[in-house]
Amino acid sequence: MKELAPGIWKITLGEPEKLTPVTMSRLVETMHNSSETVNNLSDHMNNVVLSELSIDENLPTMLPYYGEPIFDETQMKYKVTKRGLVLELPLSLEEEVYGFGLQLKSFSQIGKKKQLRTNADPVADSGDTHAPVPFYVSTKGYGVFVDTARYVSFYCGSSVKLKQEHAVTQPQGNYKIKTTTEELYQFQNNNCDRSMVIDIPSVNGVDIYLFAGPDMKTAVQRYNLFSGGGCIPPMWGLGVWYRGYGKMNEEDVLLLAAKIREDKIPCDVFGLEPGWQSHSYSCSYAWDPQRFRNQEELIKKMSLMNYKLNLWEHAFVHPTSPIYDKLKDLSGDYEVWNGLVPDFLLKEARDVFAGYHKVELIDKGISGFKLDECDSSDFTGGWSFPNCAEFPSGLDGEQMHSMIGKLYQETLYSIYKNSNTRTYNEVRSSHALAASLPFVLYSDLYDHGDFIRGVVNSGFSGILWSPEVRQCDSDKDLIRRIQTVVFSPQTLVNAWMIPNPPWFNYDITKNLLGEKAEDSEQISHLVKTFFELRMSFIPYIYAAFARYHYEGVPPFRALVMDYPEDTKTYHICDEYMMGDSVLVAPVTASEDKRKVYLPTGNWYSFWTNDKYEGGNEYEFEVPLDKIPLFIKEGSMLPLAKPVECITPDTIFDVTVNCYGDTCVDFILFEDDGNSFNFMQGDFNRLILKKTKDGISEIREGAYPGRKYNIIG
Amino acid sequence: MKELAPGIWKITLGEPEKLTPVTMSRLVETMHNSSETVNNLSDHMNNVVLSELSIDENLPTMLPYYGEPIFDETQMKYKVTKRGLVLELPLSLEEEVYGFGLQLKSFSQIGKKKQLRTNADPVADSGDTHAPVPFYVSTKGYGVFVDTARYVSFYCGSSVKLKQEHAVTQPQGNYKIKTTTEELYQFQNNNCDRSMVIDIPSVNGVDIYLFAGPDMKTAVQRYNLFSGGGCIPPMWGLGVWYRGYGKMNEEDVLLLAAKIREDKIPCDVFGLEPGWQSHSYSCSYAWDPQRFRNQEELIKKMSLMNYKLNLWEHAFVHPTSPIYDKLKDLSGDYEVWNGLVPDFLLKEARDVFAGYHKVELIDKGISGFKLDECDSSDFTGGWSFPNCAEFPSGLDGEQMHSMIGKLYQETLYSIYKNSNTRTYNEVRSSHALAASLPFVLYSDLYDHGDFIRGVVNSGFSGILWSPEVRQCDSDKDLIRRIQTVVFSPQTLVNAWMIPNPPWFNYDITKNLLGEKAEDSEQISHLVKTFFELRMSFIPYIYAAFARYHYEGVPPFRALVMDYPEDTKTYHICDEYMMGDSVLVAPVTASEDKRKVYLPTGNWYSFWTNDKYEGGNEYEFEVPLDKIPLFIKEGSMLPLAKPVECITPDTIFDVTVNCYGDTCVDFILFEDDGNSFNFMQGDFNRLILKKTKDGISEIREGAYPGRKYNIIG
Repeated sequence: MKELAPGIWKITLGEPEKLTPVTMSRLVETMHNSSETVNNLSDHMNNVVLSELSIDENLPTMLPYYGEPIFDETQMKYKVTKRGLVLELPLSLEEEVYGFGLQLKSFSQIGKKKQLRTNADPVADSGDTHAPVPFYVSTKGYGVFVDTARYVSFYCGSSVKLKQEHAVTQPQGNYKIKTTTEELYQFQNNNCDRSMVIDIPSVNGVDIYLFAGPDMKTAVQRYNLFSGGGCIPPMWGLGVWYRGYGKMNEEDVLLLAAKIREDKIPCDVFGLEPGWQSHSYSCSYAWDPQRFRNQEELIKKMSLMNYKLNLWEHAFVHPTSPIYDKLKDLSGDYEVWNGLVPDFLLKEARDVFAGYHKVELIDKGISGFKLDECDSSDFTGGWSFPNCAEFPSGLDGEQMHSMIGKLYQETLYSIYKNSNTRTYNEVRSSHALAASLPFVLYSDLYDHGDFIRGVVNSGFSGILWSPEVRQCDSDKDLIRRIQTVVFSPQTLVNAWMIPNPPWFNYDITKNLLGEKAEDSEQISHLVKTFFELRMSFIPYIYAAFARYHYEGVPPFRALVMDYPEDTKTYHICDEYMMGDSVLVAPVTASEDKRKVYLPTGNWYSFWTNDKYEGGNEYEFEVPLDKIPLFIKEGSMLPLAKPVECITPDTIFDVTVNCYGDTCVDFILFEDDGNSFNFMQGDFNRLILKKTKDGISEIREGAYPGRKYNIIG
Repeated sequence: MKELAPGIWKITLGEPEKLTPVTMSRLVETMHNSSETVNNLSDHMNNVVLSELSIDENLPTMLPYYGEPIFDETQMKYKVTKRGLVLELPLSLEEEVYGFGLQLKSFSQIGKKKQLRTNADPVADSGDTHAPVPFYVSTKGYGVFVDTARYVSFYCGSSVKLKQEHAVTQPQGNYKIKTTTEELYQFQNNNCDRSMVIDIPSVNGVDIYLFAGPDMKTAVQRYNLFSGGGCIPPMWGLGVWYRGYGKMNEEDVLLLAAKIREDKIPCDVFGLEPGWQSHSYSCSYAWDPQRFRNQEELIKKMSLMNYKLNLWEHAFVHPTSPIYDKLKDLSGDYEVWNGLVPDFLLKEARDVFAGYHKVELIDKGISGFKLDECDSSDFTGGWSFPNCAEFPSGLDGEQMHSMIGKLYQETLYSIYKNSNTRTYNEVRSSHALAASLPFVLYSDLYDHGDFIRGVVNSGFSGILWSPEVRQCDSDKDLIRRIQTVVFSPQTLVNAWMIPNPPWFNYDITKNLLGEKAEDSEQISHLVKTFFELRMSFIPYIYAAFARYHYEGVPPFRALVMDYPEDTKTYHICDEYMMGDSVLVAPVTASEDKRKVYLPTGNWYSFWTNDKYEGGNEYEFEVPLDKIPLFIKEGSMLPLAKPVECITPDTIFDVTVNCYGDTCVDFILFEDDGNSFNFMQGDFNRLILKKTKDGISEIREGAYPGRKYNIIG
């Protein structure tokens, strides 16, 4: 067992595979820093952890650790069989565990089995997911990362070894019979020692990484810092995103973009769906010569309207693509939709793919991409390569299914990184160690409850998730979904199926016919109000992302991460923390009221300022123009005057609200909002203090510009 | 490549595992016939195929085969990797494939990937199923069986190897953009050579069995005969089954049983749910001393009312069970609900388990069992052992998950077989080569459409399926489900959640309170009418099961099996053939009318005698007292006067209806309906011929008794 950094240990069991998430990260790191020499990942990581931390030395530093690892090696029993490696770790009776990536169907994983298998259509709670992350955390205050790209299974205390003795008496005839499925399916806690059984197929060995607490949040922070620290999106990325109808041509785009500005509906990013390409399943990555004749003109005009342009694509390369021939020998041995599957683990393949994107798209003004279909399930007929595929780098199909999303992200991110321009993107698949990648996950699954759970769960695994708004069953459904997405990492409306915005008419058939709904004005007004609320929260959210980067604290997270002592939070997956002081409790279209549990401490309603005592559950009637929001006592909440979009010149007029008599300082993060200069120290910490005369400001740091104007 | 029997070949690739469905069947066969010596399975199978066939020599014998195997060995490309063995088989452009066991979510498998993984909760169309059967058939007229108990994956033409050349031109700018998920998810036929890719984890070799046609039905017949021929249920098994409330005691059972007789509602089998046992999760297999004080009295009284008694259980053995200690060293290394998982592949374990069941339950009059939870998914929290479990026989958890259902069936079936008494049962899991086992599958999934698809799909895989009726949303839902289950292998009402029958009140809460629905009389009458219709069809269905046994023809099957030339049947999974001449097109509660496709040939409505020309689709209004049934022109349909239940003395008064001017003979199967004496030739073929004077009968065979009285 080797300590890599304070509270981070590595244990090697058997003979691990050569290609794992950690070794692949190292490989990619080396590619991107071909001038630098990175000889040793653990040294490198160690440096990252320490150096990144040091800049934030004024914050209470939780990350040093002087204790012992949570398990010693004798407690880590493993064996290698023809099926692979099986590892057993201790699990105590009172522990709850969370994590495993983007689990949309469940929250606490105790008593469950999860097989982490990439699947574009993860309808069952079996572990299938867009983003399998073999990392879990425990309420006992530690995290375990299994460094594998295989479809590893975790039996979270669900399996019990044969016992030699059972303390049972003869049946007394009072055995209770269950006559509902609810009773029957309830997890039966066996009241005995249990374990975490980890079943890794096809391997003879594996590296395990342990992350110490003392609490679960700190373990996640260590994991995120080990991953390179969380990303900080460009400021415009935190604004509103709109994706247009798939069949739009450039005139349609410009017209709708102008209409949105005319209606003064906030919007920062306009996304083009498959129609921009001359061939999209698979992809040409070239503009469609009929729908988009003057792309450069389009980009310029959109830029003049202060829109960032985002392009849809996926990783499968059509024979008509200019990069097809160059990639042919750098791809897997199976096709998808007649297209190549580039082996993004090869430097040559990345160079071809990234080189083309840089010259043809990014240098011409494209701000980012939507990387679709890279969850690339082979369960969706013909949508991917098989698990038995082979890639020139040595990855097989199973490993590539796990990794392609992340490798694809890294390929495109490297261009922006090298150009010192930040980007913010969408992606349909990710994996471990992805915290530093500015990509937000989304899904074709569409249950609103699942989407809320996605926000809650993503915080355990170093991934970001957007509960995007797509089709809606009703105005109510539209508004309730808008409210959720406004309080998420990416406020995204994806109107790929309809030519007009959903607030014009949520009904797809009528929207396609251009029929405006009777209550469209009223609905548009409500949508606009919530988008404006989003814009008000940007300085607050931006500060939360700065903590994600420097301290590893996920900006959106489960209540249990902040309240590990409050066992009532252990099963709450329909409320979450946004930053350190805002509790969000979204409402779905099926409800007009909802119960909200407020953890230990006092809370204030964002809307009424009413005070509530924590440790209790309250039921609230929730009219359609409200989403339950509660502010933690002792917090200061900076809120900006909303702008329609964020430009390099934007300066936010910020009002600070204080909740309670004494408030901890709030630290705004200030930089150019657009480059990586902050990584060279070019940023300010704008410390807001509550004084008896109001709010005092202390600005520390080297950034000469101003983004915030504190007006009271 | 070795020809085992006409049209059945075995090909060994690499070094197969020792424990596979075929070798395990051989092992079990040897256990059951310890007096006989079965040296060679293929010889044995050969004998079965030939001897069983010879008795039916008057039927057109399709089974001899003089052609070449569909693939030669050069067309079967395989490789062994660290993940296991990958095999590629040819698949032509126009082929459709079906099978893979109890697939509830899809029908034609072309373009799909199926991983055959045992799962108690198979909500996704990924291959997860209660009954994974690694056997598929093709419209080209052949079947392929992969002899493995591993979670094998089949890529049914969904994956395409990288091509050297693509006949593509430069994009013309008219690329069609899809803007609905329906368009997007539609399988894209690549118009190129494709293949069936079979990915078998953890093995270095595998045996493949090829089954020749000339058509798909014949390939299935060969597979079923290779499996030992289909089962013939005891005649009473084809009557109506009722499972009572889980909390019933013996008085409750007797009262309800008497009430059913009083109401003259047909019922043959009464099933007791978990409450009969002193401990049921896991199982004691001992009567509960409070609820069932006088079991032998109960059995006697039920028998006097002509009920067969069936008992619920599962395979996990509670510490209080009398067989616990004896099984302890014969079980796996993980527990389920504190119970043992017996290793049913060990003769000693089977002997303990079967021995106890024989003496304590079967010899005392129990007619059969409901084997629950043996799909034993490890995805349902704590409901099973992990895939990495180890069993003394050498099976690991993955293999045992595949096989436990079948091994469990064989263990209990052997008792009845050795007692020369037929039995009919329920089971929640099965696997390959199971046709001869008199067990019918069921599921906790409950979508009516899925349940109908289950009937259609089961016919491809040598398994039987009951779309059991459980809770209902409405009277309409109850009746529509009753209609489906009446035309299925097992007419089963499972009222485990409610003390009164669902026709008393479908509403669970009211049923629990004893509140009779206002329309209960009317609903009961309708239910009774359909149960009586079932009883009328028993001679017909019994004849279909005889064909299942002797010729391998599944009694319930997809239209495409009977009409392989009619491509319009290729995607029909909401209609099916029952026997050779009845087409059933069930209606769900969401419909009041439905479209029915009638294949090539003429058809008559069962209800109106109206004639319809096949090759067409018709839409019918379907009132609640009807289910669409069509009789093939040229058929004779024997229908019995309904009886309430079937006793050894039952003689059916049979009326024969002729459809069309000339009709092929109908052959009723006549035996004692209860023993295995028919296997010694103790049965009659009662041949019904249409003559100008009516129906003539020719009785051939050695059975001295009479079951049918042809009245016209």
